[in-house]
Amino acid sequence: MSSLHIIPPALERLIRSFSQLPGIGSKTATRLALNILRRPAAEAREMGAALTELHGAIRLCSCCMTFSEQDPCVICSDQRRDASLICVVEQPADLMAIEKTDSYRGHYHILHGVLSPVDGIGPEEIKVRELVARVQSNGISEVLIATSSTVPGEATASYLIDRLQHLPAKLTRLACGIPMGMDIKYADQYTLARAIQSRANLREP
Amino acid sequence: MSSLHIIPPALERLIRSFSQLPGIGSKTATRLALNILRRPAAEAREMGAALTELHGAIRLCSCCMTFSEQDPCVICSDQRRDASLICVVEQPADLMAIEKTDSYRGHYHILHGVLSPVDGIGPEEIKVRELVARVQSNGISEVLIATSSTVPGEATASYLIDRLQHLPAKLTRLACGIPMGMDIKYADQYTLARAIQSRANLREP
Repeated sequence: MSSLHIIPPALERLIRSFSQLPGIGSKTATRLALNILRRPAAEAREMGAALTELHGAIRLCSCCMTFSEQDPCVICSDQRRDASLICVVEQPADLMAIEKTDSYRGHYHILHGVLSPVDGIGPEEIKVRELVARVQSNGISEVLIATSSTVPGEATASYLIDRLQHLPAKLTRLACGIPMGMDIKYADQYTLARAIQSRANLREP
Repeated sequence: MSSLHIIPPALERLIRSFSQLPGIGSKTATRLALNILRRPAAEAREMGAALTELHGAIRLCSCCMTFSEQDPCVICSDQRRDASLICVVEQPADLMAIEKTDSYRGHYHILHGVLSPVDGIGPEEIKVRELVARVQSNGISEVLIATSSTVPGEATASYLIDRLQHLPAKLTRLACGIPMGMDIKYADQYTLARAIQSRANLREP
């Protein structure tokens, strides 16, 4: 308690602001704020300007719902990508992770969340309606459901399959199994069981 | 590479800014920036304002050199504290850590660094001159040297002892030994050796 009044209010304000970020406790927030104070004021002002202008510059792409400065976003307006293939992900960060693999050339749909009844998040709180409309109206041949392999991610996938299965598009899901480079004896039993059930044919009989 | 152009420039700018902070890599910076984007714009603007105004609001206390909005700082101008006792620390964060213990009621002196010849940091680059002047001019009875128990911290302590020993003030150093609550068998050999050398008398003979 007695240590609080010795922190100058302008510093305390930044520490409090940083502390609201996920995974940043008050110790880390203090360390970061003190580090910023030791660096040139221009760097702090640049970070401040980036924060101040962030929300104004970025909107949701009206097609895939990702964060973008232009509408449609760079992916939805890229003619070289396959617009008949939609990969459904929970968050923009998932889109970035998939783009990094360099092995997907279709479009995306960002749900901005997963179904979570205990938190009051139903289909209307995430971008399900927009997805169903897209799959209904456009010439979509495949919907790859790439929600996480967690309980809410699987529940959301099941719900989407339910909502989309009467439409002509093919529905697919990311493969589950042993991560690349993992020793089998360290895989958890559920992953290993799934890898056995979903085993791949190496040679057709 | 291909994943970079899909990040909107306004978001990329914030990610780049966050990545310059210590312990924040590009993955964490991306996670934080996306989290901020999902929250109300007012929070981002508040954090932005705190950053923009930080350096303008805070200066160094002309007496103890800590970060402060007023000069002298709240500690140096607190009449209830013992002005004849100076605790010398490396950084303002060390001052905060000591204040949290609630067991020190003297003044401080912040060096803003440690001696590190390989990095070109000599006595002129840290606040040594200001410390020597304080100890020379004021009625200082004790200087507690509380630099870290690391190689540069110890080197800085030795240098300060050299510079201050001809002055009348008593020189003291934080005690070294086994951390509270630590099992002796897990203490490193150097700490244990120091704890044995510096063993405390429980009963006078």
